[in-house]
Amino acid sequence: MVLKLAEIAARVGGEVVGNGELEITGVAKIEEAKEGEITFLANRKYAKFLEHTGASAIIVPEDISKVPGKSLLRTKNPYFTFLKTVTLFYPPKPLLEKGIHKTAIIGEGAKLGKDISIGPHVVIGKKCKIGDRTILMPGVVIGDNVTVGNDCLVHANVCLREKVVIGDRVILHNGVVVGSDGFGFALEEGKYYKIPQVGTVIIEDDVEIGANSTIDRATLGETRIKKGAKLDNLIQVGHNCIIGENTVIAAQTGLSGSTKIGKGVRVGGQVGFAGHMEIGDGAAVGAQAGVTKSIPPGVMVSGYPARPHREELRIEAVMQQLPQLFKETKDLEKRFYELEKQMRKKC
Amino acid sequence: MVLKLAEIAARVGGEVVGNGELEITGVAKIEEAKEGEITFLANRKYAKFLEHTGASAIIVPEDISKVPGKSLLRTKNPYFTFLKTVTLFYPPKPLLEKGIHKTAIIGEGAKLGKDISIGPHVVIGKKCKIGDRTILMPGVVIGDNVTVGNDCLVHANVCLREKVVIGDRVILHNGVVVGSDGFGFALEEGKYYKIPQVGTVIIEDDVEIGANSTIDRATLGETRIKKGAKLDNLIQVGHNCIIGENTVIAAQTGLSGSTKIGKGVRVGGQVGFAGHMEIGDGAAVGAQAGVTKSIPPGVMVSGYPARPHREELRIEAVMQQLPQLFKETKDLEKRFYELEKQMRKKC
Amino acid sequence: MVLKLAEIAARVGGEVVGNGELEITGVAKIEEAKEGEITFLANRKYAKFLEHTGASAIIVPEDISKVPGKSLLRTKNPYFTFLKTVTLFYPPKPLLEKGIHKTAIIGEGAKLGKDISIGPHVVIGKKCKIGDRTILMPGVVIGDNVTVGNDCLVHANVCLREKVVIGDRVILHNGVVVGSDGFGFALEEGKYYKIPQVGTVIIEDDVEIGANSTIDRATLGETRIKKGAKLDNLIQVGHNCIIGENTVIAAQTGLSGSTKIGKGVRVGGQVGFAGHMEIGDGAAVGAQAGVTKSIPPGVMVSGYPARPHREELRIEAVMQQLPQLFKETKDLEKRFYELEKQMRKKC
Repeated sequence: MVLKLAEIAARVGGEVVGNGELEITGVAKIEEAKEGEITFLANRKYAKFLEHTGASAIIVPEDISKVPGKSLLRTKNPYFTFLKTVTLFYPPKPLLEKGIHKTAIIGEGAKLGKDISIGPHVVIGKKCKIGDRTILMPGVVIGDNVTVGNDCLVHANVCLREKVVIGDRVILHNGVVVGSDGFGFALEEGKYYKIPQVGTVIIEDDVEIGANSTIDRATLGETRIKKGAKLDNLIQVGHNCIIGENTVIAAQTGLSGSTKIGKGVRVGGQVGFAGHMEIGDGAAVGAQAGVTKSIPPGVMVSGYPARPHREELRIEAVMQQLPQLFKETKDLEKRFYELEKQMRKKC
Repeated sequence: MVLKLAEIAARVGGEVVGNGELEITGVAKIEEAKEGEITFLANRKYAKFLEHTGASAIIVPEDISKVPGKSLLRTKNPYFTFLKTVTLFYPPKPLLEKGIHKTAIIGEGAKLGKDISIGPHVVIGKKCKIGDRTILMPGVVIGDNVTVGNDCLVHANVCLREKVVIGDRVILHNGVVVGSDGFGFALEEGKYYKIPQVGTVIIEDDVEIGANSTIDRATLGETRIKKGAKLDNLIQVGHNCIIGENTVIAAQTGLSGSTKIGKGVRVGGQVGFAGHMEIGDGAAVGAQAGVTKSIPPGVMVSGYPARPHREELRIEAVMQQLPQLFKETKDLEKRFYELEKQMRKKC
Repeated sequence: MVLKLAEIAARVGGEVVGNGELEITGVAKIEEAKEGEITFLANRKYAKFLEHTGASAIIVPEDISKVPGKSLLRTKNPYFTFLKTVTLFYPPKPLLEKGIHKTAIIGEGAKLGKDISIGPHVVIGKKCKIGDRTILMPGVVIGDNVTVGNDCLVHANVCLREKVVIGDRVILHNGVVVGSDGFGFALEEGKYYKIPQVGTVIIEDDVEIGANSTIDRATLGETRIKKGAKLDNLIQVGHNCIIGENTVIAAQTGLSGSTKIGKGVRVGGQVGFAGHMEIGDGAAVGAQAGVTKSIPPGVMVSGYPARPHREELRIEAVMQQLPQLFKETKDLEKRFYELEKQMRKKC
């Protein structure tokens, strides 16, 4: 596909600086782009590549008005403009044709929507409802009484346990498990007895969950992931957790049971949350943090155990100097005792 | 289902305080329960809800004898009584009907028990033995020469590699892998060569393993998870590890090869164990700890690297004050040197 | 199988010390070996077992020339010799017979190599190319336009997304996902919009990836795992990462997007790498480290945040003494102020 820069601007927005007639043949990362390609600057870390990129055009933030030798597309939100540009050049292709593969097993009483795609070896339990245009890739296994909304993309080998509810436009990547039993056992005379996990999981609209992540069903009631939340790969969400709208969680993070995360929270990778925590709206949690206390709205924490980020940075800075501090204190002690001894003699 | 409180007490044990004729319609969490429901207090953190819960009845520990406006069911172990009450209201339903689905592939020489349930697209290798009443959900793949005991529940898309042995009443959640190769390579002239992993895995009776956890087979000999151990989701168990009876391990924890964990050990989430560690019976390991030394029986450790928990708490408390200590030491140094100088002059 | 010690030496290399006519019946770990078996000493930690092992023969490093009561096989690299000895006693058996199972679904335009094994319920998309002698175990799902090389072993329920490229002799363990979408979203007016992930993944020759690990496809361009790299279970590799030749990564480690790891790097378990890091050739990263800065070639780091390992050890040692330091400093302050007061009076 070839598009002129001015055409791109017309379709994705932004102001052209330079040659609008420039023919653009593709999109590439700033350090890899070649002549004829358009790239973007979203992370300032990559500003050093601006002049050296092989790209002919660059999507830039509005505060940049000139890069020698390059045509620019200035926009408020270059990353969002990049998204739209990529979509122009790579219009989404369906991963599966429409229809129900002859090897799929559909349980009694299933209600299937229009223009659905159900791949080979998919298994759907009894009394399920699958929405319009939803795609179930090969090997997906869905238990009884499950609801999946419209326009969902459920990748190969995903498992949805009985009764879970999935909203519209949800994307579940390969190997995701929704509705596995919560981890609950009562200890009686040295043995653990399983607490029946009779609750469910509700995944709201526009949620995306990364490969091999696991979302446990509630003991009673529900585990819920709210609208627009985005979860990365290999994440563990315990029973009865709630994840708020438009919250983003990076890979390998784990939430213990009954933890509630607010709206618009950003959580780094490999974070651990103790159970029964409450994380306020707009909070942020640094990668690998261990969250053992609830976090007020808007606060950023990091470290182990997690503390307000500024405090953590101060502690880290001092820790760096700890061996030196130790040595100085020991010296000081020695000299002090000597001085003290002398003073006692003399005075 | 509706049951009178006195009927519930008769079936699950405990002493009724208040109205035994109360009609109970369900079980719910203390903060969500509504009129007509029974709830429970196991975690003292939730005691604040006792008076405010919507529930009509509460399962409480024996030291609580009155809650205004509520009927009580007093028991020694409220969580265990809760378990029995949930089971009353939600008697377990089979996830799959009995019989062998026509799309299942059963290898030569398989011995299948009575009243078995084998779901669509299950694959069983040669010379396997599957016990009575065991349920293999859709998409389960079992290699050659595998033994699975009686009354097991193997959820969809679990993989059991060749030769592994699973006991009775074992529950394996979706995506669990038992018997993947241990991670062993010999380095020779800068390249890694794979050590054949010819050992096996033995999972004893009453073990439960959470979704997408991976249990590696032994290099030689066996990896073993003993009776009644409970593992959460996304846990990694390396080759030749042994996990003791009634040990409980929370999500995303990892055991490096040849580590041995004793009986009745409690391990938090995201813990890492170095290889060849020995963890004594009744020990406990705090979440996110990094265990680099063996732990004696009964000792609780936490932190990174893991230390006795009390010591770790003392260190954490001091770290909090570290920037202040640093400042004070610097001040002290300055004042000391000044004093020393003065003294030298004067005395 | 029974082999004389001298025969073993002839086939795997090494010098016999003792009885070459000794009949060896198997291989076992040093602490578990019985009479008639051969064992090995690779990790010096196990030297204490040398005299006490039940084994009749031991593969030892060249600096050991005598162990009372045992015959020895002295070699340069005992672990590598052990590998060859295990292979002698346990010659690899195919996990699947050759041929294509009748329940496998093969897409249009697929090119399948010679002597291939395709198990039950495998799904292969359109226009795929699968090399000679490659084994696809049951339930493997392969998207459109995928290339898999020769002599690969793809375990049950692995998912390969569209367009990914797998080299020769690659081993992918159960539940591995290659080519899941990278985690990229543009924030616009409080909502996250998905960045299309139109790049791919390239896995080069002789790579091994552990069970349930996830390798994300690139946003643009490629994610690449180079020749001979070995990844353990439950590892997350973000979009656009590069992992160098003969690099080894232990379980549950995570790489954020665009991080590049060099050749011959050793990474412990549960390590987290921030995005856009560069890790030099021959570097090493201790378990559970949090890598927030690039690492020069050959440097070993550990800790959180990761620091040069020696520095980290020094800090850890001091932290241990921190409560004591704290107490001493407080004492010193008190005594100093007293002395200062006295001096002011007296002098």
